[in-house]
Amino acid sequence: MTGQETPTACVLLIGNELLSGKTQDANLKFLATEMSKLGIRLEEARVIRDDSGAIVATVNECRARYTYVFTTGGIGPTHDDITAEAIAKAFDLELVLDPEAVARLKHAGKEVNEARLKMARVPEGALLIENPISAAPGFRVENVFALAGVPPIAHAMFASLEPLLRHGDTIHSRSIEVLLREGDFALELEEIARAHPEVEIGSYPFARDGRYGASLVVRGTDLATVESVLSKVEQTMAELAAARRS
Amino acid sequence: MTGQETPTACVLLIGNELLSGKTQDANLKFLATEMSKLGIRLEEARVIRDDSGAIVATVNECRARYTYVFTTGGIGPTHDDITAEAIAKAFDLELVLDPEAVARLKHAGKEVNEARLKMARVPEGALLIENPISAAPGFRVENVFALAGVPPIAHAMFASLEPLLRHGDTIHSRSIEVLLREGDFALELEEIARAHPEVEIGSYPFARDGRYGASLVVRGTDLATVESVLSKVEQTMAELAAARRS
Repeated sequence: MTGQETPTACVLLIGNELLSGKTQDANLKFLATEMSKLGIRLEEARVIRDDSGAIVATVNECRARYTYVFTTGGIGPTHDDITAEAIAKAFDLELVLDPEAVARLKHAGKEVNEARLKMARVPEGALLIENPISAAPGFRVENVFALAGVPPIAHAMFASLEPLLRHGDTIHSRSIEVLLREGDFALELEEIARAHPEVEIGSYPFARDGRYGASLVVRGTDLATVESVLSKVEQTMAELAAARRS
Repeated sequence: MTGQETPTACVLLIGNELLSGKTQDANLKFLATEMSKLGIRLEEARVIRDDSGAIVATVNECRARYTYVFTTGGIGPTHDDITAEAIAKAFDLELVLDPEAVARLKHAGKEVNEARLKMARVPEGALLIENPISAAPGFRVENVFALAGVPPIAHAMFASLEPLLRHGDTIHSRSIEVLLREGDFALELEEIARAHPEVEIGSYPFARDGRYGASLVVRGTDLATVESVLSKVEQTMAELAAARRS
């Protein structure tokens, strides 16, 4: 342990398309996986509309509650891209043209017309987040990081931030799949979970090719403990499966 | 219009696996699509942990704010399934064994052991939600509907609820894809959006096979208007594309 508390985070996925059923989100799983590696505890994610009031209220609630807030979406050039304006409003800052952002767009060979200049407007004093794919930057204000919505760009932006974030202890995860039904092992699994509060044990049922089973996951910051608890889970499940066959 | 206000909703996706990166959510897009058809305005979705405090606080906040709250996940038999208990707590109700839920498990040929009995415990007075796939029911307390997390079960449960929900005007959606960059049409699209506040116009950029484009979506409750605005968008984009080629 570093002596500091584990950093926490919230992801805000911004965009009407995620709430209309048009688009399948492809950012949360990636960001969640990366944060597990960095030891940042992702406490929640919210999917909200391209609505200034909703963005302002949610950003202000979450930035007070968590170490980090990452937003995705709404930083492009079209009329429904209102994230930068809303984050400026949340912090009571002006939205200003950032000369470095303009330079990056020009350097990428973009025709910097009025529409594209919108992508160079950020809350006053914001730090730019590099976009290695299409140049238009994300930005950071205090503990709020505004990333693009297009998945490869969002992922590249997050990767560029990793050295700047406070890390916690990496959360290790190991899992097995069993072809037993949860109702046939729940009590035994609970007993193991109670005996090992230092890890988190999850059970995720599935149906595949007409067979039912579950993925059993052990997570924790000490890899040896995670592996040892997983062994116990595995042995218990093998015994239960054998008992059912006999 | 029915004279009543459009019903609103919030989806709460409950489960640590969605915040650890282990699992890709496969419920939100489906539920969002169905709600668009029913004319229910999905205002937000939240992904939260299997944590009693988080579930209680979020359920109470959202049930006061929206017409409907739909939760997914955490109603199975294992120790990390705490949704029923937490929703009971949110409503200050006892968690009680529901005889009809027990009967449904037995009727499905399940060995009703102690673990499976947990799936028959619901907040006192809750109405059961049918599970045509694996029998263990969801439940409803006032405007909160607890669905399973396994996608085919969650989807079947939601379908069974549709006749019970207050419907609004169906939201029609039409879209085209253009191989133009957002920065090359943002101003013209904004002009159309301003002239037609009765519809919602969205632009969603993509990169595919090294080409950039955007999906342009028009949504609204009057299909003729949606189609007519989409025609305007299409014509404007065709003119812009022609101008760029010439």
